[in-house]
Amino acid sequence: MIQVIKIGGNILNDQGALGEFLEIFSANSHDKILIHGGGKEATSLAGELNIETKMIDGRRITDEPMLKVVTMVYGGLINKNLVAKLQALGCNAIGMSGADMNIIPAHKRNHPDIDFGYVGDFKLEDINSDGLLALINMGITPVICALTHDGKGSLLNTNADTMAAGIASALGKVSDSELHLCFEKRGVLEDAEDDSSVIPEMSKIQFDKLKAEGAIHSGMIPKLDNGFQALSEGVKKVIVRHALYPGGTVLINE
Amino acid sequence: MIQVIKIGGNILNDQGALGEFLEIFSANSHDKILIHGGGKEATSLAGELNIETKMIDGRRITDEPMLKVVTMVYGGLINKNLVAKLQALGCNAIGMSGADMNIIPAHKRNHPDIDFGYVGDFKLEDINSDGLLALINMGITPVICALTHDGKGSLLNTNADTMAAGIASALGKVSDSELHLCFEKRGVLEDAEDDSSVIPEMSKIQFDKLKAEGAIHSGMIPKLDNGFQALSEGVKKVIVRHALYPGGTVLINE
Repeated sequence: MIQVIKIGGNILNDQGALGEFLEIFSANSHDKILIHGGGKEATSLAGELNIETKMIDGRRITDEPMLKVVTMVYGGLINKNLVAKLQALGCNAIGMSGADMNIIPAHKRNHPDIDFGYVGDFKLEDINSDGLLALINMGITPVICALTHDGKGSLLNTNADTMAAGIASALGKVSDSELHLCFEKRGVLEDAEDDSSVIPEMSKIQFDKLKAEGAIHSGMIPKLDNGFQALSEGVKKVIVRHALYPGGTVLINE
Repeated sequence: MIQVIKIGGNILNDQGALGEFLEIFSANSHDKILIHGGGKEATSLAGELNIETKMIDGRRITDEPMLKVVTMVYGGLINKNLVAKLQALGCNAIGMSGADMNIIPAHKRNHPDIDFGYVGDFKLEDINSDGLLALINMGITPVICALTHDGKGSLLNTNADTMAAGIASALGKVSDSELHLCFEKRGVLEDAEDDSSVIPEMSKIQFDKLKAEGAIHSGMIPKLDNGFQALSEGVKKVIVRHALYPGGTVLINE
């Protein structure tokens, strides 16, 4: 069984918490893959370079200067530091983007109204799960940043939750896989103001109902959409949880 | 036989020449590894971020802000773009630093007088040549940037010529290897003002003599030191040449 674990900005930007997470991750004896973004750090570097950050619906508009920024931050700064820290903990990590070993070939997003720039979408069947499996079977832990490529020489910025869901789904076709979408809360909350109100299980029907009622925080919707998509593709377990704590919200297909 | 090919700033900063080089590299049917630095681009980004670049004897003083810069530029910007371009040419590349798969564990340089900061030196016997061979035997082409790590969680800035020589030497113990140190000239020149005065072969004795006479350009000395070192370690062929043209200066152990 392969665990695909995605971490976000809350943990990447807190060195103490990150260290704690990496210890837990290294000690985890399952085969595993770590997926990360780094949006906050990218926004911060873009600011230092006087490059404006434009977001639409939580997605980063990625023009050429911004592609350069995310390539440096996701592929370089965050990815290589995660790898060095994991190696120090005895976890034989290899840092990758979707271009490396052609793990995730993608295409530039074609949106009728919005030019997202160098933003990539991929097809599940294009993911090189054999390549990932080969590395895992060598005892190596892939650490994958939120970049794909267009097969024509250009990198593309791709949402890390979507990549994690895609990788878990593709691996689920050739092995058993789990998807852990980690974020700053301990799970999906019944009451956004009450951190202890974690919903232990959420079905697709329940999610659709809460979504229709507007009772789910808008930032959670794409994450849960990705999670339920992975579940429907055959991922054995999908859980939305905090990177440091057990528990969380298990998604169930009903 | 594995070719270890190192490219430098002259080709990395010229998109046309880089494209030409990558076509030649992709079409090269030998097992191969590409090694790159990116000092000029790092100096340029450091300037944009108001970080001062300090060099001593051609070596970059790497304090914490500069380590961040080289990690972003070498490990992210240059490495991931080289990989995306190679994938577009059908070369199944994987981008790496010396931390990935623990390829090159190193230690912070201990210099009696100068604090080079996060600069790494490594021992030949510590290079993970088995890991590199395993990737090569999977049909994968490693693309390695000039970063190593200290095994305690920190990346280290390491000279790309030295890394290339080390990797060729380590691979030379388990396979046949060649080292190609590419730079902006067509080889070592007899007359620095005359680009056609390439010395076709240079022995260690000849090099030592020219060095003692001050007849070798100071910038060439560390490169040739690295080349002769690799030759003495058993690398089958060491050549100093232009990335785009055949010929060059073959180093011979006499």
